[in-house]
Amino acid sequence: MLSGYTIGDYLLDRLAQTGIKHLFGVPGDYNLQFLDHVLNHDHITWVGCANELNAAYAADGYARCKSAAALLTTFGVGELSAINGIAGSYAEYVPVIHIAVAPTFLSQHKRELLHHTLGDGEFDHFFRMAAEVTAIAAKLTIANATSEIDRVVGEALRRRQPVYLFLPLDVASAPTENRPCPLPIPEPVCSDASLQEFIDAATEILATANLVSLLADFLAQRFGAAKSLQRWLDHMSFPHATLLMGKSTLNEQHPCFTGTYSGHASDEKIRSLIEDVDVIICVGVRFIDTITAGFSHQIPTEKSIDIQPDTTRVGHKTFSNIPMLTAIEVLEKITSAFSSRWRHAAITPPALPSSDEKDKLDQRGFWRQIQGFLKPGDILVTEQGTSCFGAAALTLPQNCQFIVQALWGSIGFALPAAFGAQIAAPERRVVLLIGDGALQLTVQELGSIIRDDLKIVIFVINNQGYTVERAIHGPEQRYNDIAAWNWTQLPAALGADSDNVLCRRTTSPSQLAQTLSEINREPRLSVVEVVLPKMDMPKLLQSVTQSLEQRNTTH
Amino acid sequence: MLSGYTIGDYLLDRLAQTGIKHLFGVPGDYNLQFLDHVLNHDHITWVGCANELNAAYAADGYARCKSAAALLTTFGVGELSAINGIAGSYAEYVPVIHIAVAPTFLSQHKRELLHHTLGDGEFDHFFRMAAEVTAIAAKLTIANATSEIDRVVGEALRRRQPVYLFLPLDVASAPTENRPCPLPIPEPVCSDASLQEFIDAATEILATANLVSLLADFLAQRFGAAKSLQRWLDHMSFPHATLLMGKSTLNEQHPCFTGTYSGHASDEKIRSLIEDVDVIICVGVRFIDTITAGFSHQIPTEKSIDIQPDTTRVGHKTFSNIPMLTAIEVLEKITSAFSSRWRHAAITPPALPSSDEKDKLDQRGFWRQIQGFLKPGDILVTEQGTSCFGAAALTLPQNCQFIVQALWGSIGFALPAAFGAQIAAPERRVVLLIGDGALQLTVQELGSIIRDDLKIVIFVINNQGYTVERAIHGPEQRYNDIAAWNWTQLPAALGADSDNVLCRRTTSPSQLAQTLSEINREPRLSVVEVVLPKMDMPKLLQSVTQSLEQRNTTH
Repeated sequence: MLSGYTIGDYLLDRLAQTGIKHLFGVPGDYNLQFLDHVLNHDHITWVGCANELNAAYAADGYARCKSAAALLTTFGVGELSAINGIAGSYAEYVPVIHIAVAPTFLSQHKRELLHHTLGDGEFDHFFRMAAEVTAIAAKLTIANATSEIDRVVGEALRRRQPVYLFLPLDVASAPTENRPCPLPIPEPVCSDASLQEFIDAATEILATANLVSLLADFLAQRFGAAKSLQRWLDHMSFPHATLLMGKSTLNEQHPCFTGTYSGHASDEKIRSLIEDVDVIICVGVRFIDTITAGFSHQIPTEKSIDIQPDTTRVGHKTFSNIPMLTAIEVLEKITSAFSSRWRHAAITPPALPSSDEKDKLDQRGFWRQIQGFLKPGDILVTEQGTSCFGAAALTLPQNCQFIVQALWGSIGFALPAAFGAQIAAPERRVVLLIGDGALQLTVQELGSIIRDDLKIVIFVINNQGYTVERAIHGPEQRYNDIAAWNWTQLPAALGADSDNVLCRRTTSPSQLAQTLSEINREPRLSVVEVVLPKMDMPKLLQSVTQSLEQRNTTH
Repeated sequence: MLSGYTIGDYLLDRLAQTGIKHLFGVPGDYNLQFLDHVLNHDHITWVGCANELNAAYAADGYARCKSAAALLTTFGVGELSAINGIAGSYAEYVPVIHIAVAPTFLSQHKRELLHHTLGDGEFDHFFRMAAEVTAIAAKLTIANATSEIDRVVGEALRRRQPVYLFLPLDVASAPTENRPCPLPIPEPVCSDASLQEFIDAATEILATANLVSLLADFLAQRFGAAKSLQRWLDHMSFPHATLLMGKSTLNEQHPCFTGTYSGHASDEKIRSLIEDVDVIICVGVRFIDTITAGFSHQIPTEKSIDIQPDTTRVGHKTFSNIPMLTAIEVLEKITSAFSSRWRHAAITPPALPSSDEKDKLDQRGFWRQIQGFLKPGDILVTEQGTSCFGAAALTLPQNCQFIVQALWGSIGFALPAAFGAQIAAPERRVVLLIGDGALQLTVQELGSIIRDDLKIVIFVINNQGYTVERAIHGPEQRYNDIAAWNWTQLPAALGADSDNVLCRRTTSPSQLAQTLSEINREPRLSVVEVVLPKMDMPKLLQSVTQSLEQRNTTH
């Protein structure tokens, strides 16, 4: 059926070579011919989503579990629907390769009044918009396509950020003689001179330190440093933590893991173990308002070492062109000499508060049961809000992956992201924690989860509206109420066979416990509505939202 | 509770003064304080939507039924989620005033690592993106706010396009002494010299014309010319039509209304009545690929008069600075002298084809029943695809309003747009025609329709997937399949009380007929699933999609 090898095929082969096995998206008339090549491809599977924003979120969730992800949309309407998801991937360093199939060059040249345009004969608006939220936006032509594809995909992998390919449909279908050879990912530059200065400075500050701590965050995970970092920490026994965005980057079962650090909203013990030391080593950390309770962290420049993807800092001195992995190796060597001095006793992370309620579920009772439910290897996807701030207090079993979008914080992200994560890792259990308000934003992707027969465990925290917003401002205001849905009826409406899905509404601790054991007995798609009091919230959420409201009011 | 009169209050008063009574949107922490002022406002009602894209579509639907609409989102995540909807409003000349509440100036100045930013300390990305798809994007400061609000709102009304207000939350809450005085909407400029030349040229070409026709399109409706135009046509008896985008701009019960014109995909009689004449007068027309079956219209420049919002053309001569209303008045005067010469007999619009099927519903049977169901005054919202191309063949009762997004063509638009239209016109019946594929994209807004107890009549055309895409390319390809939902169970899952909603699945003509009479007996929210054969489609859709596929393949 399909004639010859095209530029579109080259692109698909290139994606497959980077480890991408799925293409997320929504069909649209400009991309249908390219989709024929997708369906015909041996190593790429098409994953149709219910809308483009959901597809972008799903691709993001997928990329967090693999090397990268790919997203296909149509010109204008499709790509703009997806752009908020792409912006989130950009902010949070998630490499999503966004392919927007555009009208032909001839149509563009003739400035035709085509559908999906603004009707002004101008075809560059969306390209410029994409350029604001991607590492590279490139226009493919027949002449430059294969080399541009290589450059742009390579940069996505190196910079761990989304890229945008503007692919006119006649370029996609044009034949090419080229075939993708192995793609060399540009190595980060390492300056020997800079490295030596860094070694000297780090040695000097560490040699005199009596107490040391380490804080890791999401960039350590994104730039592939989590394993090296853990190997180093496994030989060490100083207190270490992650911030919420980087949760699961470190092994939380390590005796010196303190629990999640959140600035002054941290449990006092955690705060003290991390802050009240002589030197704090930060790896891949960005101090963002939401995860530091409004910049309440006390990590003075003069007593910290900061490792970023290609720059390091010791006190006030910055050293450029030092890749993160190199910096970690160096610190591992330096610290081995001092490690015995820093030996800290095993740390017991703060216990989850227990609930006095016997008959009614509350936040405390809920989180204790979730802690017991989690298993090694689970992927835990948490929505920004009650879910992620509650989950911050969990101690994750080994090899769990924690997914949260705490910087971009786009409500509705978590359900499609869980879908993408499950596609990326079919062998792992995906557990989703999401609020009733958030679930409404992107709920149609539950239909795709049902269609693909995925066994995701979904906890819908029903506290009657936007609790996180109530906590910030307007607890009783009508704008924080939402339409009341019947969550347990929803899967059937979206096409689920009652044999394949477990739907439960739980209001008491015993109902929840029974439901969890049902899920453990027979894994299947589960939608568990957890009814919690309207204004009950995790302690961390209270602290964080108070600080945000204060900043919004007084700044 | 709320202290003093603020810039936010000024903005709300200004909106109210333009006739806007509702503010659509989604709460987010940056906009919560402003929302307190919204809830406190005497003339503006908050309409919370399930997500921001839906809110943008709803605002668009609202603005198509009123002077303008307003949309409130939060910085970054909210505004980017909405931006595809705004782009549609821009393409289709729908004035939506988009208010994006941003972090404080101090936070921006300090380049803080705030949530909902890209984490790069840069706060202008989204402003630049908005500028691509709005008539004006403006940044409000305490110093410029009230004058900028006046300028920007005025331009939205004058240009009939969306505008963007970047409103830092500390600006919104700043006190102001100013109060909005009546807003002078800038009058379009009219050049007397240009007007005389236009009169001369139009008189010359019309004086010798034996056959004349008129084609109106959406810009006539958008720029408030529909009434003048109809008044003129009521005194005339030459054939006239609209294109699909402008359907309902003219009274389809007029004896010389031909039916919807679609280039060479038109019924041959319509095509001939419009094209085979000496002079074709076009009012507010844009020839877009989808509604002309790929530019198949034959409206030669030399034998046409073209009236645009502020420019006119007679043959090859263009006259600038002539407002559309002025041009229509002029033509009315000129043509009154010749009208008797152009007297055409009453035209019977082509009959809807009848169906041979007795037991199974098909497209033909369905559309005939819809024709009988429509009442004067209905607002008919049709999704791009099977729905709008099928509806093109309907003859609308008097005072119907037809809503379609045929240029931007963003699938998923119609359900939220119907919600917005019903909010704008609570006294009218809103009838929505939408496919099963399209409905999935934005389905959560059905929850808002249920919450607000709106009595919209929804026909879900279930033909198992993206029929419009199948028609263009890949009829049996998997990418045109969608997850199979149980449409009649959905309202209950989204919170509907079974007493307040009528849910029916119809597969036969008699079931549909019975359902329609049930709806007429007792108006209430109705979700009618209409099961139609997978590859059955309206004739116009066939012609249009064939031409699009051909252009995609051969261009």
